[in-house]
Amino acid sequence: MSTYKRVHNFNAGPSILPEPVLLQAQAEMLDYQGTGMSVMEMSHRSKEFEAIIQTAEADLRELLGIPQNYKVMFLQGGASLQFAMLAMNLRPAGASADYIVTGAWSRTALKEAQKLGTTRVVFNGEGENFTRLPEPAELQFDPNAAYVHFCHNETIHGVEFKSEPVVPEGVPLVCDMSSDFLSQPVDVSKYGLIYAGAQKNAGPAGVTIVIIREDLLARVPEKMPVMLDYKVLAESGSLHNTPPCYAIYITGLVLKWLKNLGGLNAMYEINREKSEMVYRAIDESGGYYRGHARPEARSIMNIPFRMASEELEDLFVKEAKKADLIGLKGHRSVGGLRASLYNALPVASARALVEFMKDFQQRHG
Amino acid sequence: MSTYKRVHNFNAGPSILPEPVLLQAQAEMLDYQGTGMSVMEMSHRSKEFEAIIQTAEADLRELLGIPQNYKVMFLQGGASLQFAMLAMNLRPAGASADYIVTGAWSRTALKEAQKLGTTRVVFNGEGENFTRLPEPAELQFDPNAAYVHFCHNETIHGVEFKSEPVVPEGVPLVCDMSSDFLSQPVDVSKYGLIYAGAQKNAGPAGVTIVIIREDLLARVPEKMPVMLDYKVLAESGSLHNTPPCYAIYITGLVLKWLKNLGGLNAMYEINREKSEMVYRAIDESGGYYRGHARPEARSIMNIPFRMASEELEDLFVKEAKKADLIGLKGHRSVGGLRASLYNALPVASARALVEFMKDFQQRHG
Ligand SMILES: Cc1ncc(COP(=O)(O)O)c(C=O)c1O
Ligand SMILES: Cc1ncc(COP(=O)(O)O)c(C=O)c1O
Ligand SMILES: [Mg+2]
Ligand SMILES: [Mg+2]
Ligand SMILES: [Mg+2]
Ligand SMILES: [Mg+2]
Repeated sequence: MSTYKRVHNFNAGPSILPEPVLLQAQAEMLDYQGTGMSVMEMSHRSKEFEAIIQTAEADLRELLGIPQNYKVMFLQGGASLQFAMLAMNLRPAGASADYIVTGAWSRTALKEAQKLGTTRVVFNGEGENFTRLPEPAELQFDPNAAYVHFCHNETIHGVEFKSEPVVPEGVPLVCDMSSDFLSQPVDVSKYGLIYAGAQKNAGPAGVTIVIIREDLLARVPEKMPVMLDYKVLAESGSLHNTPPCYAIYITGLVLKWLKNLGGLNAMYEINREKSEMVYRAIDESGGYYRGHARPEARSIMNIPFRMASEELEDLFVKEAKKADLIGLKGHRSVGGLRASLYNALPVASARALVEFMKDFQQRHG
Repeated sequence: MSTYKRVHNFNAGPSILPEPVLLQAQAEMLDYQGTGMSVMEMSHRSKEFEAIIQTAEADLRELLGIPQNYKVMFLQGGASLQFAMLAMNLRPAGASADYIVTGAWSRTALKEAQKLGTTRVVFNGEGENFTRLPEPAELQFDPNAAYVHFCHNETIHGVEFKSEPVVPEGVPLVCDMSSDFLSQPVDVSKYGLIYAGAQKNAGPAGVTIVIIREDLLARVPEKMPVMLDYKVLAESGSLHNTPPCYAIYITGLVLKWLKNLGGLNAMYEINREKSEMVYRAIDESGGYYRGHARPEARSIMNIPFRMASEELEDLFVKEAKKADLIGLKGHRSVGGLRASLYNALPVASARALVEFMKDFQQRHG
């Protein structure tokens, strides 16, 4: 266990985890705190696992300042299952929901909701290739909408909201926060529901965090399958059935790491530093690298960018990989390049990327 | 990492994993095979993870002899989500499904299916406290049933089918195999669909294995949420969205361990040996320990038993725990005691339990 190789990991998700988290998980793999068992081998009803899940929830509440009238759930199925569940639970029969479409993920969320009932598209950035966010004046909401859905950070197109859209009084704001969850402080009280697949900033794939304002649980219709029923899941403390115990344990370790680091304000400063470094490298390349998103919409987490040709982009990925810079290929749906700079990515890795970009340009520019 | 404590782990699920699996996971935690990443940090679209999931599927196919016309899926949501999904996918509008109810789990599966459509209960063992299985003559199936559902092993009541119920020609047999999956050979060709939460014999909590005969995918209705749609999930190779990567990786290691051990025939012999040992201890106790299930229905995986009083049972659990025998309390819904003897439980642990039972009887009998 003495030495091991580690790379600069720019994967978009699943993605890099903090090294101290992995070291602790490694040390505890066969014997969690003297129990003589791995966390994977413990009953989800044991007092040890209850402490793990309750501590994770408490730490998450502390980090995000989650108000008392919100429930926290650790679910399975990914953010993709939430696309359907939130519509099934929060949109009563006959009602319509408003969707803001700013990239591939909010478009997919819309598609799932359309299958199951009525939706209205309030904004659609597709015609501009998802390079920008809506201006406030462009957003004319339905005052009777069951909810307004948006995606806080589009992982593929790299556009990120800087503040929440202002919705009509009484209409709950529902947000896919998968790819910038825990990257910065959030005022949870502005939201009806926040969901996030853990596999970017919060933990490994296999657990999805849902934060819901309690009064919305009254909307859950009768005869819902229990595993799709927010009320059942929230009231059981995510223990209606066997939860993804190990993924929750790792998430708990990540939350402790975040707290030790100083919480979300401290994390945000680091994330800004890393992303500014990379955007500067793009902007100072004289057009050799071209960012996808308009500057005012730029994400601090995911930076998609292009070069003059696909051949050059392929060469970039290939040479980067040789230099142990991993995961820089753009999403298969848009091509190009993408650097994801999640919480656990060290500043040194962002610096290594910037150095590599400059060097590559000198050699091939 | 030199020494670690391990207990005799009789948990009902999540439950014990093979020690070599945990040791390998531990060694690879920070650097999977020279990639410089944990499996938790790898893209689910990377060639490394594709190899992991494809190898897991190939090994599962080999172990179970899964015919070519079956698809394998690694899903999220637990067996509990399958209770609803199988009904949503396989029972066309207006059709009815037959249910054999032999314990708490098949009763729960029935309940979920009842919410969503028409069911018929072919057998219900509840009046006899779920101590036995139906005789073939008791099973009068609906020849037009969309499917027949049964639970191969009732984890809580400890009754296990020795052979499949014989259903009418053309009616698919659907089976919850969660708690004896991979404990013994199975003729998959008799089934339309088999599902199993991994957290007993196959791996950690957080992944559910579903094996489906391909022709049944034609039944999937229009407008299903993608994450509930067997057709989408099967055709994407479980990669429609981010799968529970680490749970699949551990499952893959367990499957390799099973293969090295000699496959399901070898495993079955060991499981028989362990369970016979414990049943013998019960039968030879002169009524001091009383098995729940009738002898001909006894499970080789889960052995629920009682003692003369709850006080004695509590004392048994307490003293067992002091002797590092863990997880012997019965399910909270039925009380008493339960020993789960899953694949990964060493014969030595079954022996330790038997010794403890004898000793306890001598001291308190
Ligand atoms: C913003 C966003 N939403 C949803 C998803 C889908 O998540 P999952 O794969 O967990 O279903 C992703 C995946 O990358 C994402 O980035
Ligand atoms: C036979 C059986 N079916 C279903 C379940 C429910 O599984 P899950 O918790 O994965 O939903 C269990 C859980 O113990 C079980 O033993
Ligand atoms: Mg993505
Ligand atoms: Mg991950
Ligand atoms: Mg159980
Ligand atoms: Mg487990």
